[in-house]
Amino acid sequence: MNRIFLKSAGLALGAAVALALPALAQDAEAPVAGAVPEQSVFVFNTLLFLIAGFLVMFMAAGFAMLEAGLVRTKNVTMQLTKNIALFAIAAIFYYLIGYNLMYPLGAWSIGTDDTGGYLGAFGVAVMEAVGVGAAEADDLSYATTGSDFFFQLMFCATTASIVSGTLAERIKLWPFLIFTVILTAFIYPIQASWKWGGGFLDSQYGFLDFAGSTVVHSVGGWAALAGALILGPRLGKYKDGRVTPFPGSNLPLATLGTFILWLGWFGFNGGSQLALGSVGDAADVSRIFVNTNTAAAGGAIAAMILTQVVYGKIDLTMVLNGALAGLVSITAEPLTPTLGMATIIGAVGGVIVVFAVPMLDRMKIDDVVGAIPVHLFCGIWGTLAVLLTNSDATIGGQVISIVIVGVFVFAVSLVVWLILKMVMGIRVSAEDEIAGLDSAELGMEAYPEFGKGSQIS
Amino acid sequence: MNRIFLKSAGLALGAAVALALPALAQDAEAPVAGAVPEQSVFVFNTLLFLIAGFLVMFMAAGFAMLEAGLVRTKNVTMQLTKNIALFAIAAIFYYLIGYNLMYPLGAWSIGTDDTGGYLGAFGVAVMEAVGVGAAEADDLSYATTGSDFFFQLMFCATTASIVSGTLAERIKLWPFLIFTVILTAFIYPIQASWKWGGGFLDSQYGFLDFAGSTVVHSVGGWAALAGALILGPRLGKYKDGRVTPFPGSNLPLATLGTFILWLGWFGFNGGSQLALGSVGDAADVSRIFVNTNTAAAGGAIAAMILTQVVYGKIDLTMVLNGALAGLVSITAEPLTPTLGMATIIGAVGGVIVVFAVPMLDRMKIDDVVGAIPVHLFCGIWGTLAVLLTNSDATIGGQVISIVIVGVFVFAVSLVVWLILKMVMGIRVSAEDEIAGLDSAELGMEAYPEFGKGSQIS
Amino acid sequence: MNRIFLKSAGLALGAAVALALPALAQDAEAPVAGAVPEQSVFVFNTLLFLIAGFLVMFMAAGFAMLEAGLVRTKNVTMQLTKNIALFAIAAIFYYLIGYNLMYPLGAWSIGTDDTGGYLGAFGVAVMEAVGVGAAEADDLSYATTGSDFFFQLMFCATTASIVSGTLAERIKLWPFLIFTVILTAFIYPIQASWKWGGGFLDSQYGFLDFAGSTVVHSVGGWAALAGALILGPRLGKYKDGRVTPFPGSNLPLATLGTFILWLGWFGFNGGSQLALGSVGDAADVSRIFVNTNTAAAGGAIAAMILTQVVYGKIDLTMVLNGALAGLVSITAEPLTPTLGMATIIGAVGGVIVVFAVPMLDRMKIDDVVGAIPVHLFCGIWGTLAVLLTNSDATIGGQVISIVIVGVFVFAVSLVVWLILKMVMGIRVSAEDEIAGLDSAELGMEAYPEFGKGSQIS
Repeated sequence: MNRIFLKSAGLALGAAVALALPALAQDAEAPVAGAVPEQSVFVFNTLLFLIAGFLVMFMAAGFAMLEAGLVRTKNVTMQLTKNIALFAIAAIFYYLIGYNLMYPLGAWSIGTDDTGGYLGAFGVAVMEAVGVGAAEADDLSYATTGSDFFFQLMFCATTASIVSGTLAERIKLWPFLIFTVILTAFIYPIQASWKWGGGFLDSQYGFLDFAGSTVVHSVGGWAALAGALILGPRLGKYKDGRVTPFPGSNLPLATLGTFILWLGWFGFNGGSQLALGSVGDAADVSRIFVNTNTAAAGGAIAAMILTQVVYGKIDLTMVLNGALAGLVSITAEPLTPTLGMATIIGAVGGVIVVFAVPMLDRMKIDDVVGAIPVHLFCGIWGTLAVLLTNSDATIGGQVISIVIVGVFVFAVSLVVWLILKMVMGIRVSAEDEIAGLDSAELGMEAYPEFGKGSQIS
Repeated sequence: MNRIFLKSAGLALGAAVALALPALAQDAEAPVAGAVPEQSVFVFNTLLFLIAGFLVMFMAAGFAMLEAGLVRTKNVTMQLTKNIALFAIAAIFYYLIGYNLMYPLGAWSIGTDDTGGYLGAFGVAVMEAVGVGAAEADDLSYATTGSDFFFQLMFCATTASIVSGTLAERIKLWPFLIFTVILTAFIYPIQASWKWGGGFLDSQYGFLDFAGSTVVHSVGGWAALAGALILGPRLGKYKDGRVTPFPGSNLPLATLGTFILWLGWFGFNGGSQLALGSVGDAADVSRIFVNTNTAAAGGAIAAMILTQVVYGKIDLTMVLNGALAGLVSITAEPLTPTLGMATIIGAVGGVIVVFAVPMLDRMKIDDVVGAIPVHLFCGIWGTLAVLLTNSDATIGGQVISIVIVGVFVFAVSLVVWLILKMVMGIRVSAEDEIAGLDSAELGMEAYPEFGKGSQIS
Repeated sequence: MNRIFLKSAGLALGAAVALALPALAQDAEAPVAGAVPEQSVFVFNTLLFLIAGFLVMFMAAGFAMLEAGLVRTKNVTMQLTKNIALFAIAAIFYYLIGYNLMYPLGAWSIGTDDTGGYLGAFGVAVMEAVGVGAAEADDLSYATTGSDFFFQLMFCATTASIVSGTLAERIKLWPFLIFTVILTAFIYPIQASWKWGGGFLDSQYGFLDFAGSTVVHSVGGWAALAGALILGPRLGKYKDGRVTPFPGSNLPLATLGTFILWLGWFGFNGGSQLALGSVGDAADVSRIFVNTNTAAAGGAIAAMILTQVVYGKIDLTMVLNGALAGLVSITAEPLTPTLGMATIIGAVGGVIVVFAVPMLDRMKIDDVVGAIPVHLFCGIWGTLAVLLTNSDATIGGQVISIVIVGVFVFAVSLVVWLILKMVMGIRVSAEDEIAGLDSAELGMEAYPEFGKGSQIS
């Protein structure tokens, strides 16, 4: 490994290897000049989606670990159950309904690409046939439909993952799962179509949201906020005018979850370039990777320094959420910032989280894992921060889109939660909440053999 | 990220990016038409194996976490030790013996490709020389030997991982490791050669098993079943005609393991396309990814609904095993099903698991993690399910192959377990089993500082 | 999946697929002969860096889990905090200072490529502009600057991760973080420039270190050793002439961490080929993957057998460190060895660890996780082992480089630790150490609800 020496000596790498290993020189085949052939571009783009897709898929494990680590022992099995169930539900309902609602290919149920698309197409997703040739590919200038579906599905699932953390420790399982069906089949895809499906936010307002600070993260945050308001705080969280901390039961899991999310975000943002098969796209994806990484670092360090200054000691859970805040903040525009600007955008996200978490507590909005500060507040910040580095963004387009998406998702979520509350109830009984959802609803403890010396009610 | 708008507007992506960022337009280099060049195909295929291989490698961690989470605290260190040791053993013995037994390249010790290959070649695996040129590559129409070896090794290791879960909590360490040597050096490669090495199941029976519902999963399952029968159930598991549940000690680990396995399965099935470097192969790999994902989702949801209906509450461990059951079920044919069909195939797997786990208990076959239902029963189901969507499959070919592989692996495993039992004993003493294998055999606790208030004998 | 049958029948894979699926035959597009086009090579190389980079990034999670699992419960939150903080610090300071110090592109502050480069360039890293064309790429014969930065940053972060484990359970947080700044901004990049930046160890001594047995692992080890000497052992570790074992609190986490590191090492070594876009490079990367894997297996099995023989029982933590030792040992030359030789090189690493861990204890050097045996001793061994398989290596070049890097890193680290000790103190008070760093410095327990029945002082 000796990259720059080769570069400064003006040697092509192949030649340099040949020098280092003279016996092989005669085998070297000089690459031919010219652009990447069209079908190679297609394979590169597809491969980008597959790799980015499995990275984002793994974020489901990240959310599961983060949330399992931040809830109390008595609710861990439930939190794990919700996380694997919501991912499975997203997979099914995005296939049955969501994908074509989000990408109507111009066949809007309400509206058109030109005048503004509002409601996409209904129908199940259909992949390309087995072994298609170049002529039969759905879009040879893009990538396979299968890889696109795979990648987009994971964004839908991420949105659902965000909700589960906020509402932990007191919501019933089945109402949560039913809300997840509505969210992944309708709420997420419909609003996502407005931007990424070429709908009215894209065509009428020039809204820019590269990988989804608004379209994914704030949407999860709004849905979570609506649920938290209707559900109310956990018993004992706010009593006698004081906020009782309920410490997370397993911080290594929470840290692992954060690292997994950080890893997955390279797919989340990098894959959103939607193309890899040219010099420019390869450079852009690379740029996105480093900006994504440095924004997370900026958020973590900002939260670290700030908690040291404000509280006199570093708060690990704030550092974890600071890293995630940095990631959400850079998601709306991970391409155009310089490394320095990306670091600052992420750091601001970290600051937001440190101040927003206690602010929500003062408002008695009980967000178990801090998902609303991370995904909603930093999602809004990240969407506005596009204005700092991308001259194509307009204040009006960004603000209006934030508001429209927010009002739509919050209002619909509120209605759905209210209906669920009326029809079946969404909150467990006080007895069950005190006993813990694991024994009350599932009859299965997460750590049946570990003592519970200092369990907190 | 705005895929469909671009598509519906009929713009190539490069052009669209240029529109969005006009300053860059002059730099765009239009891709040239035509197929992927041969050496690019070779690199794409190799890259597929490397990526898929590291994903499947990570499944070893998935099995380790799944099993560590499902055994009792007192046996966790042992289960971890077995899992890392078996992976290391597989790496060595597949190299020394297994690879050429599995892929004799026509040089069968017994049989031929045409009349039926039965026993492959003996000899260590040899990679391509350093820095080979195109002319010296082992097979320019395929991929590098190194990447193929890497990918295939991980399948062999997976087979060994399956066995360790079933036999947990009472088998001695060294006999287990010796069995692993036999399994990875001989049993797995020999039967795998019959299909994937071009042996008699492939050439004479037209057996179809895309990624190994039979060749990998049922093989692990048969070997585990043979071991479980000889080893007998854990003390206290079946007494007085009742089944005593021994709850897993750490469900977050089990859930993490399941998510890691789910992730790894994209490599397992996707890599088994064996090619990526054309439009058709890229589309097929993509199709395999989405089918694999939806089958897992189908299995998880089926298990979730079924346990709710049958037992009145959702059983997380069943949901986890349901997801794995869906994955095993789709493995024999992840390409030809539609998304809907793949969901159903996976869901049937989930149903099988929910009914098979108590059935095994009624038969007093003690399978600690449910590996026999998941890998053996769903392996058989998945192999039969090929008939539903692939017209090249024949009932005879599938059934005969299931039977031949099953009889061979079960019989040989039974003999090996019996010999090990006679020669050195395979089961720890009752005292050691009650004390736990960690203190008795290893002298090292997994969680030395955590209380053991509710430890179950 | 049926690779060899196809090969032995002399069929190109595309044709074989067509045979299996006759309906698709007319769609197949035959690949054209010839080498990989130049811009495709560029994309392949970039993609290699991105994939390898995210794998190495995930090693940060591996180190965090390994260390969190090997420290006692009362110090787990601190260890997690250090691990995420050091990764974030590395990201920022490698960008601000390290990258150009390491890769001055010939613009040395002291020295030149020809006569020997000693101190690189100062300045922040700058990525390629958004959407560059082929003509504007920084180096079309290599890969994008962004992907190179991403990959190289992860090596710098790895070096810092190594240090945190050795010094666990008694070092103050902030002095550790300040040392991390010095290490990632200056110490690591300066010495790395001597080899990988084309400096004097490369140009004057012909030093060979493919992926960093010396440049990364021994550097982390030397810095850790200097810190351990100044910091002194943990209270109670060596008293009355005896070594008190302080068992790790969570072995599943330690095992997970090891598996994650094993996974990440495919990126670490494989990416260090620095190229993927030709037949030879694809074959070399593949060869590196299998050699890396088998060296880890060799190290794990050697440690397993040796602990069984020497201590009468297998020691899981030694097996884990044995695998890591194998990985470090093969890192200086993962390409040229055969599979058999790579296994042996790794196995020797495993042997070194089993003997070095108690040796350090006899010297009263307290290395909490065994990082000095694994990364320093096996880093030296691996660097010497290059001589066994690569005829371009010279004894003088290897030994002199090991010594120069060692003296530089150890001496500078010693000075930095001493200054930190004088200025702010680096060790917590005895009371805080006994109470645990989590409650004393952070006020946050890692597992607040788990009993602490057998906690060890």
